[in-house]
Amino acid sequence: MDNYRAPVEDMCFLIDEVLNAESCLGTLPDFAELGVGPELTTALLDEAAKLAGDELAPLRRVGDEQPASCANGAVTSSPGHEAALNQMAAGGWIGISCDPNYGGQGLPEIYSTVGHEMWNSANMALALAPMLSSGAALAIHAHGTEEQKQTYLEKMHSGEWMGTMNLTESGAGSDLGVMKARAVPEGDHYRITGQKIFITWGDHQATDNIIHLVLAKLPDAPEGSRGISLFIVPKFLINADGSLGERNDVYPVSVEHKLGIHGSPTCVMAFGDNDGAVGYLLGKENQGLACMFTMMNEARLKVGIQGLGASEGALQKATAYARERVQGGVPIIEHADVKRMLLVMKCLCEAMRALGYAEAVTMDLAHRGEADQRPAMQARIDLMIPVIKGWMTEVGQEVTSLGVQVHGGMGYVEETGAAQYFRDVRITPIYEGTNGIQAADLVARKLGRDGGGAMEAVLEEVRATVSQLQSSADDRLAAIGTAMTTALALQEQSTQRVLQALQEDSTVAMGASFEYMMQTGYLFGGWHMARAALVALERTRGGSDNPFYDAKIATTQFYAEQILPRCAAHAGAVAGADGALLSFPLEWI
Amino acid sequence: MDNYRAPVEDMCFLIDEVLNAESCLGTLPDFAELGVGPELTTALLDEAAKLAGDELAPLRRVGDEQPASCANGAVTSSPGHEAALNQMAAGGWIGISCDPNYGGQGLPEIYSTVGHEMWNSANMALALAPMLSSGAALAIHAHGTEEQKQTYLEKMHSGEWMGTMNLTESGAGSDLGVMKARAVPEGDHYRITGQKIFITWGDHQATDNIIHLVLAKLPDAPEGSRGISLFIVPKFLINADGSLGERNDVYPVSVEHKLGIHGSPTCVMAFGDNDGAVGYLLGKENQGLACMFTMMNEARLKVGIQGLGASEGALQKATAYARERVQGGVPIIEHADVKRMLLVMKCLCEAMRALGYAEAVTMDLAHRGEADQRPAMQARIDLMIPVIKGWMTEVGQEVTSLGVQVHGGMGYVEETGAAQYFRDVRITPIYEGTNGIQAADLVARKLGRDGGGAMEAVLEEVRATVSQLQSSADDRLAAIGTAMTTALALQEQSTQRVLQALQEDSTVAMGASFEYMMQTGYLFGGWHMARAALVALERTRGGSDNPFYDAKIATTQFYAEQILPRCAAHAGAVAGADGALLSFPLEWI
Repeated sequence: MDNYRAPVEDMCFLIDEVLNAESCLGTLPDFAELGVGPELTTALLDEAAKLAGDELAPLRRVGDEQPASCANGAVTSSPGHEAALNQMAAGGWIGISCDPNYGGQGLPEIYSTVGHEMWNSANMALALAPMLSSGAALAIHAHGTEEQKQTYLEKMHSGEWMGTMNLTESGAGSDLGVMKARAVPEGDHYRITGQKIFITWGDHQATDNIIHLVLAKLPDAPEGSRGISLFIVPKFLINADGSLGERNDVYPVSVEHKLGIHGSPTCVMAFGDNDGAVGYLLGKENQGLACMFTMMNEARLKVGIQGLGASEGALQKATAYARERVQGGVPIIEHADVKRMLLVMKCLCEAMRALGYAEAVTMDLAHRGEADQRPAMQARIDLMIPVIKGWMTEVGQEVTSLGVQVHGGMGYVEETGAAQYFRDVRITPIYEGTNGIQAADLVARKLGRDGGGAMEAVLEEVRATVSQLQSSADDRLAAIGTAMTTALALQEQSTQRVLQALQEDSTVAMGASFEYMMQTGYLFGGWHMARAALVALERTRGGSDNPFYDAKIATTQFYAEQILPRCAAHAGAVAGADGALLSFPLEWI
Repeated sequence: MDNYRAPVEDMCFLIDEVLNAESCLGTLPDFAELGVGPELTTALLDEAAKLAGDELAPLRRVGDEQPASCANGAVTSSPGHEAALNQMAAGGWIGISCDPNYGGQGLPEIYSTVGHEMWNSANMALALAPMLSSGAALAIHAHGTEEQKQTYLEKMHSGEWMGTMNLTESGAGSDLGVMKARAVPEGDHYRITGQKIFITWGDHQATDNIIHLVLAKLPDAPEGSRGISLFIVPKFLINADGSLGERNDVYPVSVEHKLGIHGSPTCVMAFGDNDGAVGYLLGKENQGLACMFTMMNEARLKVGIQGLGASEGALQKATAYARERVQGGVPIIEHADVKRMLLVMKCLCEAMRALGYAEAVTMDLAHRGEADQRPAMQARIDLMIPVIKGWMTEVGQEVTSLGVQVHGGMGYVEETGAAQYFRDVRITPIYEGTNGIQAADLVARKLGRDGGGAMEAVLEEVRATVSQLQSSADDRLAAIGTAMTTALALQEQSTQRVLQALQEDSTVAMGASFEYMMQTGYLFGGWHMARAALVALERTRGGSDNPFYDAKIATTQFYAEQILPRCAAHAGAVAGADGALLSFPLEWI
């Protein structure tokens, strides 16, 4: 039985007390009339928590044990999943942060992010459906003609239709430039042919229509990634009056048997096997990859949050078990090493949440903040995204694995449900750009393009927080400040090394990139935890006797003592990236 | 398709060149006539490699996809597994290091260990059958009467029969003292009743008989772990003439649906549901746990080797894929981060192998070495075992996960077979004493019982190796020496802290134990790699142009640069174990 209960207190604390959504977002023109603030946060999160805990979580094991299946050119989703998606749609959750001119709720990204965490704690396979659909809707919103927006967006935002993203082919994964799918112009549309793989929720019966976004090449397109165009390929064509018309020539061929997320049909999709699928150009010809990249930050933030979501689910399950299971005459939570495992899980969850939410606000400010602050916020979120995607999904592996471990032998038995978090989350370091690609993006693009300027801007803020910590009269905060000082110095050192390597030998920089990304993640996680701890200290001084605030400080202290030392390991590896890693002949591997 | 090929060159190098089995084991009385030395090593390993690669490996995916099943009180093993077990038996592998007076081959444990690595790389689920059977046979050998040994051992050593270990009950896992299984005396035997869970290969049709070893309590036994006795409960009773008699009242109730090792039937076993199972006391009354503990070192070494075995399988699969898969116009092995992942996998495999094999030899010396060296060797192996079991199984998680990652999206598809290593090996940190228990054993018993004496004896040897490295004229070795110097100093510091904590507050020592175990593992792995690198250097100076030796040095260098820095992270966590970990109130978790 899954008894997921959203950690609403921590979520509200971050949004309203640490990040101050009311003052930093609520006053912006786009949000001014929405009443952003603690009342809205609480109301929204309570509703979302009910949906996640009562409706989505009970289906997690169902989807795992009864995967979506494909037969006769159609996918049937796991039992209960269609109804749950309808409930998410009815609650207005699908388009929560989307443009109100096209049926969205227009709320800040931070509210979409917190919902997304809950859906993923409750049921990651199910949560993928609205996640991918949002991405497709964002692309249409950013690059569609007014007519395309009118045709598709309202129904996608409402959840009446869903969208998919069709990028990968069997020979074209991380390198999309070599794809084979073709699009031939035909009047006002194109005929699309080709096969795509790994298409999440590529087909299902849960909505009346599915709006596929498909990358393909035009005849005589330039070679490589500059010759790719993006097309809208609806499962059912849409008549002039908006009603559904002819079935388009796009069908699922099969679904993959995967390590996890069994409730999410991962399809091989055939386009145009019969008479060619009708597609409509989205954006400009040969600009397809650029169109895709415009919503990459949102997608990668969401994958990072999946790492958090699965981790929180695993933490709750493990904690409940550790309180109940008696060995040696006491509940195992009293055993020092079990307590340690739970605290590692807890502090990593809270660090991921603090980082992820803070940068969701950054994304809001980059998109809808004051005009003069947008460029800086965009530079910051561009820097943060590979760290959030990469580090949080790696941390998700550790936390869900600890969740298995706390259960002992029972953790290895599938019916227990602990192993599912571990299996489900294993996809997150792989998709939406492998973590190797995130690391390369962080180092080559995000650090390289401004000589470390965006990183330095963040480190300047970290320094300010560290000063606050060090000057705190509270011993706990001062000790956190000491640990952060060490971690900060190591970060400065590694950043310098990586920047230097970029100048001298980019292979060394690439070899160091993964370790650098992990180091950065641990520092940033600690920094955001420390910011939260500083706020918590104010509350306890303000006379609050809510143990939540003391627990937040103690959790941060644990993070500083037990997790931050990892920065040294990563810094050491970064420093050594010009050694055997570089010189080792490939034929010796 | 699995194309596992045993890394015979590295195995022979360790056994014959680094560990010098011929001089250190071959001259001992027990082994003097067996011809221990390079020729025997090569002959044995080539045979084992053929069996593992040609017969066992092709069944790995079969067992995963067609798990062993239970119906009508009997287990049917996965297709092909019975024949493969028969081949292992026919090759003499089951009793390879067992007493020749009872049909064993009498070879040193190191040869059993290297075979065990191969079986586990090829097919971990299958390898569990002889592994558990060996444990049961060892217990009978150590504690049985002459009649019991005559009755059971020859057929168990030959593989004609198999043995199982029945310890766990649903309420009694890590804490066996609270078990409920009962044994009532009845003439020359006992009637056993009770239910056991998690019984590996608890039933099957692969051998004519199964010899269950079962822990149970006598009437009026003392409370707790001092009131447990050990019984031999054969599936079929044995007639006076040695032929099989009546079916005993022991039946499998069900098999677990597990995360991995699907080809290994993990049974719920019912003893005496009808008229009581006939059991024979093994060893003395109420000494059952002590009897079990006598073969714990062997069992835990083997589980550590499972971590290595799965890792080597994952490495080979990932390397083959990375050479073949082209993205960005080149095989992905040429991408710096993929190369890094493969080198991390490779150096960790070689470090685990160097450590595991070296300590298998220590075990041989503890059991069959010169009488005057046995106590020191026993103290050393007692210290090493929790490190080998704990560290190598944790490292196994990382290596198999990297194996998935190298495959990208294909790694998440079960048919690829990379995910299976990751799922299979996930049991190893759990069974045969969770890694939390290994860590506690290392700190409380192995460090605590002699005030760190056994650890200091090993560190003294590490210091000698470090001196050799530092005085090397070869820059590579000298650099490894520098890295090892840092790691050694951190180890001394952590050891002091843990010893002090044991005096002052054992909860702090227990809280630090897991991080200490990991730190120790990384140091010992590096130390044994460095010893191997020193031997390799001699060979290149001796004029060998075999690239194996240069590769060994480069791999060690990579380990020193990329892996040894982790010691600092673990040392930091050890140092902080008296902070929030200790003071954090359980109700805040």
